[in-house]
Amino acid sequence: MSLNTFGHLFRVTTWGESHGPALGATIDGCPPGIALSEADIQPWLDLRKPGTSKFTTQRREDDAVRILSGVFEGQTTGTPIQLMIENTDQRSKDYGEIAQAFRPGHADIAYHQKYGIRDYRGGGRSSARETAARVAAGGVARAALAALVPGLAITGYMVQMGPRTIDRSRFDAAEITRNPFWTPDPVAAADWADYLDDLRKSGNSVGAVIEVVAKGAPAGLGAPIYGKLDSDLAAAMMSINAVKAVEIGDGMASAALTGIENADEIRMGESGPEYLSNHAGGILGGISTGQDIVVRFAVKPTSSILMPRKSINLRGEEVDLVTKGRHDPCVGIRAVPVAEAMMACVILDHLLLDRGQTGGIRGRIG
Amino acid sequence: MSLNTFGHLFRVTTWGESHGPALGATIDGCPPGIALSEADIQPWLDLRKPGTSKFTTQRREDDAVRILSGVFEGQTTGTPIQLMIENTDQRSKDYGEIAQAFRPGHADIAYHQKYGIRDYRGGGRSSARETAARVAAGGVARAALAALVPGLAITGYMVQMGPRTIDRSRFDAAEITRNPFWTPDPVAAADWADYLDDLRKSGNSVGAVIEVVAKGAPAGLGAPIYGKLDSDLAAAMMSINAVKAVEIGDGMASAALTGIENADEIRMGESGPEYLSNHAGGILGGISTGQDIVVRFAVKPTSSILMPRKSINLRGEEVDLVTKGRHDPCVGIRAVPVAEAMMACVILDHLLLDRGQTGGIRGRIG
Amino acid sequence: MSLNTFGHLFRVTTWGESHGPALGATIDGCPPGIALSEADIQPWLDLRKPGTSKFTTQRREDDAVRILSGVFEGQTTGTPIQLMIENTDQRSKDYGEIAQAFRPGHADIAYHQKYGIRDYRGGGRSSARETAARVAAGGVARAALAALVPGLAITGYMVQMGPRTIDRSRFDAAEITRNPFWTPDPVAAADWADYLDDLRKSGNSVGAVIEVVAKGAPAGLGAPIYGKLDSDLAAAMMSINAVKAVEIGDGMASAALTGIENADEIRMGESGPEYLSNHAGGILGGISTGQDIVVRFAVKPTSSILMPRKSINLRGEEVDLVTKGRHDPCVGIRAVPVAEAMMACVILDHLLLDRGQTGGIRGRIG
Amino acid sequence: MSLNTFGHLFRVTTWGESHGPALGATIDGCPPGIALSEADIQPWLDLRKPGTSKFTTQRREDDAVRILSGVFEGQTTGTPIQLMIENTDQRSKDYGEIAQAFRPGHADIAYHQKYGIRDYRGGGRSSARETAARVAAGGVARAALAALVPGLAITGYMVQMGPRTIDRSRFDAAEITRNPFWTPDPVAAADWADYLDDLRKSGNSVGAVIEVVAKGAPAGLGAPIYGKLDSDLAAAMMSINAVKAVEIGDGMASAALTGIENADEIRMGESGPEYLSNHAGGILGGISTGQDIVVRFAVKPTSSILMPRKSINLRGEEVDLVTKGRHDPCVGIRAVPVAEAMMACVILDHLLLDRGQTGGIRGRIG
Repeated sequence: MSLNTFGHLFRVTTWGESHGPALGATIDGCPPGIALSEADIQPWLDLRKPGTSKFTTQRREDDAVRILSGVFEGQTTGTPIQLMIENTDQRSKDYGEIAQAFRPGHADIAYHQKYGIRDYRGGGRSSARETAARVAAGGVARAALAALVPGLAITGYMVQMGPRTIDRSRFDAAEITRNPFWTPDPVAAADWADYLDDLRKSGNSVGAVIEVVAKGAPAGLGAPIYGKLDSDLAAAMMSINAVKAVEIGDGMASAALTGIENADEIRMGESGPEYLSNHAGGILGGISTGQDIVVRFAVKPTSSILMPRKSINLRGEEVDLVTKGRHDPCVGIRAVPVAEAMMACVILDHLLLDRGQTGGIRGRIG
Repeated sequence: MSLNTFGHLFRVTTWGESHGPALGATIDGCPPGIALSEADIQPWLDLRKPGTSKFTTQRREDDAVRILSGVFEGQTTGTPIQLMIENTDQRSKDYGEIAQAFRPGHADIAYHQKYGIRDYRGGGRSSARETAARVAAGGVARAALAALVPGLAITGYMVQMGPRTIDRSRFDAAEITRNPFWTPDPVAAADWADYLDDLRKSGNSVGAVIEVVAKGAPAGLGAPIYGKLDSDLAAAMMSINAVKAVEIGDGMASAALTGIENADEIRMGESGPEYLSNHAGGILGGISTGQDIVVRFAVKPTSSILMPRKSINLRGEEVDLVTKGRHDPCVGIRAVPVAEAMMACVILDHLLLDRGQTGGIRGRIG
Repeated sequence: MSLNTFGHLFRVTTWGESHGPALGATIDGCPPGIALSEADIQPWLDLRKPGTSKFTTQRREDDAVRILSGVFEGQTTGTPIQLMIENTDQRSKDYGEIAQAFRPGHADIAYHQKYGIRDYRGGGRSSARETAARVAAGGVARAALAALVPGLAITGYMVQMGPRTIDRSRFDAAEITRNPFWTPDPVAAADWADYLDDLRKSGNSVGAVIEVVAKGAPAGLGAPIYGKLDSDLAAAMMSINAVKAVEIGDGMASAALTGIENADEIRMGESGPEYLSNHAGGILGGISTGQDIVVRFAVKPTSSILMPRKSINLRGEEVDLVTKGRHDPCVGIRAVPVAEAMMACVILDHLLLDRGQTGGIRGRIG
Repeated sequence: MSLNTFGHLFRVTTWGESHGPALGATIDGCPPGIALSEADIQPWLDLRKPGTSKFTTQRREDDAVRILSGVFEGQTTGTPIQLMIENTDQRSKDYGEIAQAFRPGHADIAYHQKYGIRDYRGGGRSSARETAARVAAGGVARAALAALVPGLAITGYMVQMGPRTIDRSRFDAAEITRNPFWTPDPVAAADWADYLDDLRKSGNSVGAVIEVVAKGAPAGLGAPIYGKLDSDLAAAMMSINAVKAVEIGDGMASAALTGIENADEIRMGESGPEYLSNHAGGILGGISTGQDIVVRFAVKPTSSILMPRKSINLRGEEVDLVTKGRHDPCVGIRAVPVAEAMMACVILDHLLLDRGQTGGIRGRIG
């Protein structure tokens, strides 16, 4: 991964700022001959779109994606695909204080220190708005995966908001799209609605944990040692705004296990190995095993809050700072479709990388 | 990161298998004019070396590093540095069962499925022995960092073994090198010695959590969006054998915080911004802020254990598998110097990347 | 260089087809704080623009560039710069024959064989129209170079059209912009006008040789062995449509020299080494010496000609093919601004790469 | 290509200096399951070896290659292959003058200016000795190509020495290995022997032109626009020591052709398209067509000559410099096996890249 590009063969470069004229993704290395139109991408963007409930920022954006290149007569040509989303609701406002001072917990100060200049309007390049470009790119990756790995299904959902976790015994996949939090636990959904509403009204925000699972990915994806599938997934998820931790399978909890508990025992199934558990999260030695690929990550609370915090400004003066304007009380909510998109891109990339090196030939068992 | 290389400008490629004639690291992009000899690298290798206590594998390796290129009259020349470590204790043994069957929880089966062939002797390429090459590369990175950022200090230590965590109120940096577990808590050290000895004798193993801190790194390191410092650190740590999760700053615990709790408030110090807390782990928006860079990761228990587990073999037959031979009861112990090495390599890489793009010019505050 | 991106740190990805809605360049890694607006880029595009004389294609395009990201209040921010040029004159026409058959000497058949699909409208991705994106990117590179290396001057010109070469004794730099061929030889300019007019009327086309010189580039650029400055320049120039050969300094003529003739003797000047000749074209061992960097390349004749040639079609039937429509009788003419742009991008990239690795410290002489 | 690595998926990093303990190549991304041993690589090294005739340097090196990793039980495993060649004849000598002064036409001064330090012994990293590592890597590439493209044949030969060109009507492929110059023209071989002997005795040197042809490469290799097959070949050949120009097909001579002359007409053969000529050198739009891939390059005369030339030293003093020691009077001779190796590596790399992106599916004709 380098600067604003990720991927080895399916390479995604995102560009654009929160309040510039447009943002988008330049995708290089997509397989040719994949059916693709805006209609394949737009639904994913609509899921991430702001303003769909009171729990996300009230900024209104259509997030209408246009394909500017790389598709001919409804099929990818193998040349770069340019996806552009115009910004329409860059509300005119006074950025005076944000322009001059640094929000605690925000990338403001770090961008200033690195570049000596930053587009402070809406967070500029560090805005969560950048993730729209990822979701668009994920739509392309999904179209290619649908052709190459028909059985693959990628699903993200929220498993924790603030200190409140779901009860996995109530896990209902159908519930995920029925509530504004993408959670599979209907009881948690109701509870979180009240909890977050209170936080929102108080001008505070809260963190979350998201889980993404890929079912049906083939064994053999991942390029050890430094292009391991889990390394690339960790980098991909950590690159999402506000993410502070990434887990594969049992993640941090692996540390507390003994070897006898952790080892996923193997039996021989009809069509190959089957496992009696999945502590590994579908990845061993950096390579997928054919089990579900399970990734989880923590999103910190939004740093733009309506409560005053101690900070400094450009002149080095100490100030008390309150962020005005429209913000997400739990930015983790909108990270769900983003995480699915990153998973799709990484899996497609490794699929291409693997067939490049090995030709997709697999070691036989039995 | 691609296949067996990591880094953008300071690029490290490791090579070699557990039981081949040698292993090593090919380093490209090292700054010229850095004082370097084997004596600068060997001490770090000696820290990672197996067989130094009863808590690590009893394999005996000198891990003597040789510099084969890139250094002239005691200084780096800017050309590739080849570091080679010969394997000396490849104990002759019968690999019969391991060669034919797959250890549950081990990369065996994934390598087989991807490549159709694997060097099963000692785990081949997936052996923790590969990390010796990282430690050697880290020695070079440290030498360069010593010249470029004199005040930088990188320290790793163990904060959890199995379910047993340290008590941070007993944190004593001087203790770290006094016990075989690299833990800063002397009480934990004593407790873990008994705990691990029991596990070892029973043929079982256990996981661990390692923390690495870089003090004195400059602000401005990290290339958002996809070359973020935390993305690269996450990929680097996740690439270490048996790592299943990576945290920056508060990590997974960030999810439970509110915005008001999480935002690290800023005051103006003598020489720049100072922070009242460090939930962020020294990284905002993917860029270092000048605070301590704090990374933590979980290591799963060694999968090679002396207790029988259900598995299958190459012919697809179901078997009960016991791993014989010399193994680490807690492979996390030896991950400590490896993690420091990875941190050193990533920081140096970003230092070079940053001065490439920005010239190292920093935005002024005050 | 990989797929549609070139550069190590200053990375340019071009996208777009001849007859799609738009084309452009995504630039990543530009230094921050560089003054930049559309007005800095447009003049270079105007020089390359089609339809400026009867000697280039009569397609009418404004080639108006828009900066969509990466610039704030007139300065680059260090984030990706998206440059977009909308296509306006995609003349509606019957592509029937070209869509079904392959023009001899054209990329048609190769794209079909590789991708199984191609955008045949105007050559699609293989159209010389793609070079507009390079020229736009070159405009950004020039703006950065103006800030970093104020004395640098990059000049391209045509030294041969078909078999007709210039007389270097008549070299007049001021003449270059006075004639439609960018040639420094006024006599050649007059001669070529008649020569090319005849070729054009007959429906034929012809090749050319372009030379580009960078004066004032610092010593020390180039990353041996495989990122040599001349390797990167060779790849950059060879990537321009229709280029079949690249020379550095004396180029192919070097083969006929003896060592005594070829060695550029060195004297000590006021501010460093001075050379008595420049057979090397300013590059030794892949590294710039501070002398003029001299690159020359051959452009083959346009393959789209109005005269019938033997070919085949998609069904494998043998046909006689004539290309209708608007074409360049000597595509080499418009390659001149493209070559300057590529030189600018490569030099800037190596400048950043060099200061990344070495800090820009130079070995002293004297 | 970046610094000391080339290739996208089949990545070769060379390391080592002329007078260090060893040199070699680290190969990453080789397909697994390829039969490989030292015996597959050594013959190619023996062809490049110095001291095989009076026309090459009299340095005596066995150039014995050792495979240190990546091969198990006679097959590649898909993990990094480390190839090491120990230097045995680093003749002890006085480097006094070369250490302090710069040979005109040599990389000495450029390395000094870039790095501020150089290993002056035998040219250090800029020595032609580095090419042994390429030839070894080429041996691995050939082994993989033998498995993947059985009909492929790569042949290099010299077509010009100094001003003396071969007569192509006398082209006899069998002659190439019968003379010390790898020329297919027996009359030229005899003529050049006398010519070069005289030059050698006078302490002078001379340039050469090498041609390399790949027969039997599939159509569809090459990743336009910036990973074009010809761009990568140009970079690869230009990276060889002393190369100053690269041509594809008709090369520089293309400039003098008209469109009607240049277009290679196409007919339908039994198994696909057939061409009536090959001006294009087998590459259109950066993609291979299935015709012979034809690359030619010029090698400048060796800069280390026994005749005095004006130069300067480290202190900035003007000196007359004579290079003592063992050198190649025509370094182009030993470039022949090197060029074949580079061609093999580039073709294999593009084969893997192509099957990664497209799956190797080809557009049907007929």
